[in-house]
Amino acid sequence: MSRLLLNCDIGESFGNWTLGLDAEVMPFIDCANVACGFHAGDPSIMRKTVSLALKHGVQIGAHPAYQDLQGFGRRSMAYTPQEIQDLLHYQIGALDGICRAQGGRVSYVKPHGAMYNDMMANPVQLRAVIQAVAAYGELPLMLLATRDNSAAQALGDEYGVTLWFEAFADRAYDARGHLVSRQLPGAVHHDSEIIVQQALTISRGENLTASDGSPLILRADTLCVHGDNASSVAAVQRIREALKPA
Amino acid sequence: MSRLLLNCDIGESFGNWTLGLDAEVMPFIDCANVACGFHAGDPSIMRKTVSLALKHGVQIGAHPAYQDLQGFGRRSMAYTPQEIQDLLHYQIGALDGICRAQGGRVSYVKPHGAMYNDMMANPVQLRAVIQAVAAYGELPLMLLATRDNSAAQALGDEYGVTLWFEAFADRAYDARGHLVSRQLPGAVHHDSEIIVQQALTISRGENLTASDGSPLILRADTLCVHGDNASSVAAVQRIREALKPA
Amino acid sequence: MSRLLLNCDIGESFGNWTLGLDAEVMPFIDCANVACGFHAGDPSIMRKTVSLALKHGVQIGAHPAYQDLQGFGRRSMAYTPQEIQDLLHYQIGALDGICRAQGGRVSYVKPHGAMYNDMMANPVQLRAVIQAVAAYGELPLMLLATRDNSAAQALGDEYGVTLWFEAFADRAYDARGHLVSRQLPGAVHHDSEIIVQQALTISRGENLTASDGSPLILRADTLCVHGDNASSVAAVQRIREALKPA
Amino acid sequence: MSRLLLNCDIGESFGNWTLGLDAEVMPFIDCANVACGFHAGDPSIMRKTVSLALKHGVQIGAHPAYQDLQGFGRRSMAYTPQEIQDLLHYQIGALDGICRAQGGRVSYVKPHGAMYNDMMANPVQLRAVIQAVAAYGELPLMLLATRDNSAAQALGDEYGVTLWFEAFADRAYDARGHLVSRQLPGAVHHDSEIIVQQALTISRGENLTASDGSPLILRADTLCVHGDNASSVAAVQRIREALKPA
Repeated sequence: MSRLLLNCDIGESFGNWTLGLDAEVMPFIDCANVACGFHAGDPSIMRKTVSLALKHGVQIGAHPAYQDLQGFGRRSMAYTPQEIQDLLHYQIGALDGICRAQGGRVSYVKPHGAMYNDMMANPVQLRAVIQAVAAYGELPLMLLATRDNSAAQALGDEYGVTLWFEAFADRAYDARGHLVSRQLPGAVHHDSEIIVQQALTISRGENLTASDGSPLILRADTLCVHGDNASSVAAVQRIREALKPA
Repeated sequence: MSRLLLNCDIGESFGNWTLGLDAEVMPFIDCANVACGFHAGDPSIMRKTVSLALKHGVQIGAHPAYQDLQGFGRRSMAYTPQEIQDLLHYQIGALDGICRAQGGRVSYVKPHGAMYNDMMANPVQLRAVIQAVAAYGELPLMLLATRDNSAAQALGDEYGVTLWFEAFADRAYDARGHLVSRQLPGAVHHDSEIIVQQALTISRGENLTASDGSPLILRADTLCVHGDNASSVAAVQRIREALKPA
Repeated sequence: MSRLLLNCDIGESFGNWTLGLDAEVMPFIDCANVACGFHAGDPSIMRKTVSLALKHGVQIGAHPAYQDLQGFGRRSMAYTPQEIQDLLHYQIGALDGICRAQGGRVSYVKPHGAMYNDMMANPVQLRAVIQAVAAYGELPLMLLATRDNSAAQALGDEYGVTLWFEAFADRAYDARGHLVSRQLPGAVHHDSEIIVQQALTISRGENLTASDGSPLILRADTLCVHGDNASSVAAVQRIREALKPA
Repeated sequence: MSRLLLNCDIGESFGNWTLGLDAEVMPFIDCANVACGFHAGDPSIMRKTVSLALKHGVQIGAHPAYQDLQGFGRRSMAYTPQEIQDLLHYQIGALDGICRAQGGRVSYVKPHGAMYNDMMANPVQLRAVIQAVAAYGELPLMLLATRDNSAAQALGDEYGVTLWFEAFADRAYDARGHLVSRQLPGAVHHDSEIIVQQALTISRGENLTASDGSPLILRADTLCVHGDNASSVAAVQRIREALKPA
């Protein structure tokens, strides 16, 4: 990937419940992380989401999660590494089935919520995820860009899995290049000027300032953006414009 | 298919609950109808089931169902035709994902329980199922052989879907070639002599006797057998032996 | 009940998904039909909903449903009468548990969605619901007021269950006093003048005009109102005002 | 409680799946820990289980769990203390509703699986459980007897909740009086002589030998027994006989 792709969580409605402005944000993103039914998204929502992504030529990523609809996949659960792999194959396959019926295909994998956080915090779980993606075949894995991506990269290389590192324009980073917890003040940027500026800084490979004041360079392939509400969609449009090749 | 294949519902355990003698019956069948998580089977059960089928060279069929774990997919539910299609693509894909991780593939589709019964009773639903299978691509659909398969065959031809008609050796048939309801006396054969004899009669394309005494010929590609308990597994072995090419 | 109570479906959010303007509509209603987890509402949503109802002195009704989260309890499912009773006892009890922890109690029962419709269409199911409510003890059952409530009333009397008949101010009725299907034109009133007028007509025991032009009197104890959006909440306020005792 | 009551997990079937010899073990126990639908048990299973307990005069305990059917409630999940309370009120209430319809009542609460283990490991969670039981009102809480029950007892006293401490006859204990992990050799006793002997030792308030050789006295009100299979039921009968008052 030569430029910073924009990825966004999509298809997080369920049955009678609607979440997110999917139709509004889809025109401005490159990669749609589509919920696969375990934290959000049911088969009919997934069909509509895939149809929308295909219409806009957006890459479809599987966004698998722990099986916890009430908790929206955000609660850590004590799965074994083998169970994690089974969860991944089931959900990637399910979305691939929905895609296939419309002439599409899953293009990459990005774990959701607690599965994502646990994978970044626990090398055993990261290995399980990478093994699962390798066994499925061909798909890149999207994960968090940190100060030092080398351990993750080594695992990716071991299993022949392409890694797409993602950064955030609207989050503060700590010195290790991990996201500052939402519990802490200043963790989330709300000013769209700052957000666009951080997107540009990451895009150019320049120094961010970590929460302890130290300089931080993130090597990122993609930027995670949000379509939750009108203001986040507006931010995506501004980022899109700012990142346009000259 | 030149001879009568034996198909069997498999992988109907869930989490901590075990159902069926999968390991015992697998060596004697040709086609395993694997539960896909909506009436039975979770991602880990599915992995083990697929592994067992691959080990025995048994064809893996998707056995999708209505989303009703408590009712084991046996309660009719008022889904729309579009929702039925979405259910099918999700579940076929999920099983295909599990297969793919082990180097296998889904080979055919057989709806389960109420989805199967509703499809046989309602041409609108049969069309939805056939459309869904056509859109997924390449897979044959397994459905009930009746006295007159022509309406189903016409739908299959319209969408280019191969149909595999299945018959039952242990069930009584009515004059239309539908199964006699389990509510009625004599609906299920328990004597293994009678079961093996009915299997042979169907296999040779000879006349069965329907519940009203009329002769009935079923054109069938496959025979549905059961691995619920030791006695049904023994019956499968006897059928397998009886159907062996001379 | 001497005057027409206003009842409203409430607590239909789930996990991360929000539905309905519960806080806005609660001050204007008498009876809150609280979702019990099977079509909407999870234990934490239920706690918040009960807390809100208690704060406003609103009666808390159990709003049990078929177990179908994706379908929002709106798809008919082939439960047996015994299973219906089990569903009811489980869900009424669950809500009662949530209430009890806050010093409240469930005050009545109103089945939701397809369970409600099936109960009105099928006397076997209505009997099952009434038996279940009788076995739980003490609670009235809310059901649809039609031209002739006598069959339902006879069942209620047989089991000693108080019935609260409900009418709709925003729906057209057919000659039997059943709701005109939402599929048909004119089924739902959107003009708030008409809605308030129909509420007053029902309240006074005067003639409505059925869809075939015939006069229709509904004997109703309560009026079903809606808190889905700002305009329906505004309608509830106007109805509330209009029905105020002189 | 003057003598050691026997408690047993019961009602852990679900839908079409059967688990445990409930009918066989029920005559020999005092307290049935009944699954409440979140790890096992559906409304219809619960009705049958309650009916069986009432028939044998066995006390009915709520056995609530994390919402994880696939994991049988055995996987730790990151619930907040408030969510734990909501889970408890919902499930205790649901079982109480099922009981009430048959003229029974829930008599106590014993958390299941990971909810039980997390409560014993984490004082914040134990407090949440005790608060929830206190808010529901009147019910004792069953929890693990350890070398030193005083911290738990202080919490129980703070909220006015009666605690029933339980011990195990078939498990080895470490020096703190916690169960030796099933991962370790010798964690589970299989010899029924040893099991009966340990039951008697606990019953008499005599010294057990902990895994490090140190003496251990457990103050217990109840003994947890198992009805999983014929051999465990036989052990329950032997324990029952051995503990009979002279």
